[in-house]
Amino acid sequence: MNVRSYAAPSAEGRLAPHSIARRDPLPTDVVIEILYCGVCHSDLHQSRDEWHDFAPTVYPCVPGHEIVGRVVKAGRDVRKFKEGDFAAVGCMVDSCRACASCKAGLEQYCEKFPAYTYNSKDPHSGGVTYGGYSEAIVVDEAFSLKVHEKADLAATAPLLCAGITTYSPLRHWKVGPGKKVGIVGLGGLGHMGVKLARAMGAHVVLFTTSPGKVEDGKRLGADEVVVSRNPAEMAAHASSFDFILDCVSAEHDLNAYLGLLKLDGTLTLVGAPEKPLPVAAFSLLTNRRSLSGSGIGGIPETQEMLDFCAERGITSDIELIPIQEINEAYERLVKGDVKYRFVIDMASLKQGPTG
Amino acid sequence: MNVRSYAAPSAEGRLAPHSIARRDPLPTDVVIEILYCGVCHSDLHQSRDEWHDFAPTVYPCVPGHEIVGRVVKAGRDVRKFKEGDFAAVGCMVDSCRACASCKAGLEQYCEKFPAYTYNSKDPHSGGVTYGGYSEAIVVDEAFSLKVHEKADLAATAPLLCAGITTYSPLRHWKVGPGKKVGIVGLGGLGHMGVKLARAMGAHVVLFTTSPGKVEDGKRLGADEVVVSRNPAEMAAHASSFDFILDCVSAEHDLNAYLGLLKLDGTLTLVGAPEKPLPVAAFSLLTNRRSLSGSGIGGIPETQEMLDFCAERGITSDIELIPIQEINEAYERLVKGDVKYRFVIDMASLKQGPTG
Repeated sequence: MNVRSYAAPSAEGRLAPHSIARRDPLPTDVVIEILYCGVCHSDLHQSRDEWHDFAPTVYPCVPGHEIVGRVVKAGRDVRKFKEGDFAAVGCMVDSCRACASCKAGLEQYCEKFPAYTYNSKDPHSGGVTYGGYSEAIVVDEAFSLKVHEKADLAATAPLLCAGITTYSPLRHWKVGPGKKVGIVGLGGLGHMGVKLARAMGAHVVLFTTSPGKVEDGKRLGADEVVVSRNPAEMAAHASSFDFILDCVSAEHDLNAYLGLLKLDGTLTLVGAPEKPLPVAAFSLLTNRRSLSGSGIGGIPETQEMLDFCAERGITSDIELIPIQEINEAYERLVKGDVKYRFVIDMASLKQGPTG
Repeated sequence: MNVRSYAAPSAEGRLAPHSIARRDPLPTDVVIEILYCGVCHSDLHQSRDEWHDFAPTVYPCVPGHEIVGRVVKAGRDVRKFKEGDFAAVGCMVDSCRACASCKAGLEQYCEKFPAYTYNSKDPHSGGVTYGGYSEAIVVDEAFSLKVHEKADLAATAPLLCAGITTYSPLRHWKVGPGKKVGIVGLGGLGHMGVKLARAMGAHVVLFTTSPGKVEDGKRLGADEVVVSRNPAEMAAHASSFDFILDCVSAEHDLNAYLGLLKLDGTLTLVGAPEKPLPVAAFSLLTNRRSLSGSGIGGIPETQEMLDFCAERGITSDIELIPIQEINEAYERLVKGDVKYRFVIDMASLKQGPTG
């Protein structure tokens, strides 16, 4: 079937209406009518081919991997969903399901690489996958998540990437009561990191370059907010953190944050700056520190995170936009001008191209 | 008491004979007549003030922290040694002994910083500490190690830095049977890394830039030797290592080695390149990899390592030199021209300056 979408026609171009084909549902597929789709910085990077060396963009590119919607059709073997259920799709739509990582529920580290929700090889059509800036998506139920009936659907959408990307490392590095945890950067990822680390019971310190974000950081749940441009404020926290989650995609000085880790502390990157970042060996040798990376999360953990958030009423702070404003939203995203995630109201797509 | 030593008078200068004062032994001190002292790359860095930003050198500087000798006097409260015992001193001569790290036997990560064997503030005199390029050293028994009677003393000396610096991270990151472990660089540290990882039961792969070192790598215990300049050889090992110990002090591409780590694998630096090394976020995000650092080892673990090596007959491959050849040895060290550690026969110091 053909569905309406918004696509980037080239690395230079603006997103514009475009028709794409979705496969006929297989026995284990669900067809999800997309109600809301979050706007991730990755959407912008991929649309503009800014990750060319690692993941070159195939055009036209339909971004979007923070998808919440309603099941409008369920294949005959589908067990997890029935028609009318709310469902979600995150960054992956399939994986090999046979390697050690997949069997461990860590599909994001599939040894044969997962099929990502967009700009990936489509394991069924052989073509490319198209994301959530579209009317509907057809996905195997194994890569679809259950969304609680009472959830705020629009504000839940960003959990599918920003939520799980921060939740997974916080869990993996055992953040909880008695731990001092830093969150670097107050954007889409960072604001979820603050909410989740706080909900897990840690002492949360937010680092921001903007004195104007101090109050908002506290409102979101930070116990302390440090303006990272202030050397005295930074020095006061030297060698004191168990864990720091670095949510910044721009170039920045990692050594300044590594110096804040205590013995056996870890700084984990979830942002993906374009250029390599300089790391001084002494920053790591001192206190046997680690610098790590973490990418999204597996399907079981994504469901766990959605349940964790639903039970606690945790959602993303969002700005709801019609899809016709996506190009303007991208420009604002580049400037960090959003509190804290754009979410597209996909009903707007049915209104036709007015943007 | 005054003892003969060799000291660097300035960052530019050659090492030359110099007289230093050692304290009168306190009740818990031992006076060790130094028989052998290994030559570590750190000695050269510190002598030449190449770590100026982190640890500026105080001149004159007497290097040497791979010390093996004989106890010639024991203070009245000394329990661990009697006169005539063999004893060793490594990189530290004291620490606060009160912080969490010290109480955990991790004196190298003392929260108030340990007193290093040279170029550190002397906790007793208030002056600077002087290392093992000297006739004798006075050290608290708590920071002295026991050396087995039958040990090859000269070849044991390098264990006090090169040995423990590689042993400690191999233990901390649980290297053993069933683990695939890489050792990067075949020098003083790397050759100990190969021997120790092999003795711990791991599958050991040595990485070297020199095709001429392949045979020697296998002789030392590597199961495989990869010439790291050969991209095809490197690619064959992609995403396959549990742990890689990076023993290289020169600038090199960490991302090439990070790419060889499997899920949750760790690359640990024990060398200390002068300049920060560029790290690509994608190198870490893939497979949730970690880049870590490790510095020497604590006193209990250093004794454990000496016992482990003595039981298995593990020592360093050395070139024994008189102290009068130290400046020439430094020049050869810069070129990597030593198999694999210079050790000074301190008897030569008594012969007076002929170099």
